[in-house]
Amino acid sequence: MFNNILIVGCGLIGSSILRGSISKNISKNIYVFEKSKKNITFIKKISKKIKFLNNINHQVSNMDLIVLSTHMSQYKIIIRKLQKYVSSKNTITDTGSTKRNIEKLIDKNKKFKEIFVPSHPIAGSEVSGPEHGNKNLFKDKWCIILKNRIKSKNKLKKVERFWKKLGSKIIFMNSVDHDKIFSITSHLPHLIAYNLVKTAIDFQKRNKKNIIKYSAGGLRDFSRTAASNEIMWRDIFFENKDNIINSINIFIKNLNSFKKLIENQNNKSILKILKNSKKVRKEIIDLKQDISKPNFGRDIL
Amino acid sequence: MFNNILIVGCGLIGSSILRGSISKNISKNIYVFEKSKKNITFIKKISKKIKFLNNINHQVSNMDLIVLSTHMSQYKIIIRKLQKYVSSKNTITDTGSTKRNIEKLIDKNKKFKEIFVPSHPIAGSEVSGPEHGNKNLFKDKWCIILKNRIKSKNKLKKVERFWKKLGSKIIFMNSVDHDKIFSITSHLPHLIAYNLVKTAIDFQKRNKKNIIKYSAGGLRDFSRTAASNEIMWRDIFFENKDNIINSINIFIKNLNSFKKLIENQNNKSILKILKNSKKVRKEIIDLKQDISKPNFGRDIL
Repeated sequence: MFNNILIVGCGLIGSSILRGSISKNISKNIYVFEKSKKNITFIKKISKKIKFLNNINHQVSNMDLIVLSTHMSQYKIIIRKLQKYVSSKNTITDTGSTKRNIEKLIDKNKKFKEIFVPSHPIAGSEVSGPEHGNKNLFKDKWCIILKNRIKSKNKLKKVERFWKKLGSKIIFMNSVDHDKIFSITSHLPHLIAYNLVKTAIDFQKRNKKNIIKYSAGGLRDFSRTAASNEIMWRDIFFENKDNIINSINIFIKNLNSFKKLIENQNNKSILKILKNSKKVRKEIIDLKQDISKPNFGRDIL
Repeated sequence: MFNNILIVGCGLIGSSILRGSISKNISKNIYVFEKSKKNITFIKKISKKIKFLNNINHQVSNMDLIVLSTHMSQYKIIIRKLQKYVSSKNTITDTGSTKRNIEKLIDKNKKFKEIFVPSHPIAGSEVSGPEHGNKNLFKDKWCIILKNRIKSKNKLKKVERFWKKLGSKIIFMNSVDHDKIFSITSHLPHLIAYNLVKTAIDFQKRNKKNIIKYSAGGLRDFSRTAASNEIMWRDIFFENKDNIINSINIFIKNLNSFKKLIENQNNKSILKILKNSKKVRKEIIDLKQDISKPNFGRDIL
């Protein structure tokens, strides 16, 4: 499919792209640029065919596709480095979890505007690092691509084909919708999980009771989400600030209403909310975003 | 171990007790009192040895152990019915998720005060009904027993042995501590999950966008928790009202502080909170309340 692709940043996402690309024979040569020596040691074990760039250098100009999969806070530096070597022959995409910020970054630079097709694969885990990468991470998962950003249909097609080859289902979207939608379906849930765990820590300190050991009744599942990579999530919280603050406000409003329903023992309204949640669950399963198999904790019964 | 036990209410929890009791040969005869005909059909398939009570009647007086596993809102009616037949020879326990309310109920009645040993097994799922019951549901899980409630050491021992036989690890606690602790580790997480899903529904309605399909980034996992039985959870929210309202208030306070940290892009404080969450996760795994295996969504990679 390609002659040369370059993966910039090879953690959980980058190494999953790497493994998938090898498995699907996506490119004759696969290059990796990764700063962490520890990560490089892991990556070398995946396949002997992987080529490493020690620097962002002239070789970059030969890449058919460059995939950024570093933390978003690294983008500025990397774009600055890439700038020297890329031309209209190259195509760039990325995997960042917020998109308006990436667009703004690209818009500042005419060269990038013509070759950068931002994307966001909706896949991940609470673990990070290349040792957890998986060639099927993107299989049957959505990948959002920002359309209308780029004049070259050829480059758009290239990025689309790339993700399809890794198993993704493509959705075209604009960055404004993207950042709004994921502030609710992804950023708010993570933020809430972090703050729920914080609330438990605070309680434990104040009451001098070990409550974490009783986490099986609910806290446990949130703690998994709250174990996600802190750099990635700090970047998301900062980069999608306005939408996230708005989401927090709506959520707090809902919490306050719910609190009143409890105070007044409003049976009918509470049951309605709880039942509606169940319907959403069914919808999620019907949309094949989860399986219906019950969960009793992740240890096997 | 016993000659006769009676399980009152045979949904997910009751039928798991039933299956575990059969598997561990806990009693010569196992009786079930269950109102739903649909449930009875399922339960009959589990074993031919199960005996059914059509009513709470004089047979109750022969039971060595009576286990209440109905919704808590049914307790009053059941206790009223049991009252006619139980004596100091019987022992009663239960599985309710809040305990101060049960204690109050017992305290009103001298007879029950002497034979009722309240307990709470920390196990469950988002699914309900006897078809999902599992004989190992309580294996290696905590079971909280209210000590100091009962004079008879014999009855306390009986309840303790019963849960141990089902595989539980016993913790003795008072009801005030119990209801405080679980308001944080269980009730608040569920309440939050319900309200997060509600926030997503509201957003979807207001923006006329189908966002549920993008739930894989976090919302999905919350939706599982938010699919839990609505009667059970309404009962919990009402019965542990004061602690839960207090927990909501602390949580909202934390959310507002976090919002300010995002607004001010307070890098250091945000990273500290996110990193501390990860430590709790490690603690939960070390305490064997979850496994360390990464989750990429519950479909297998």
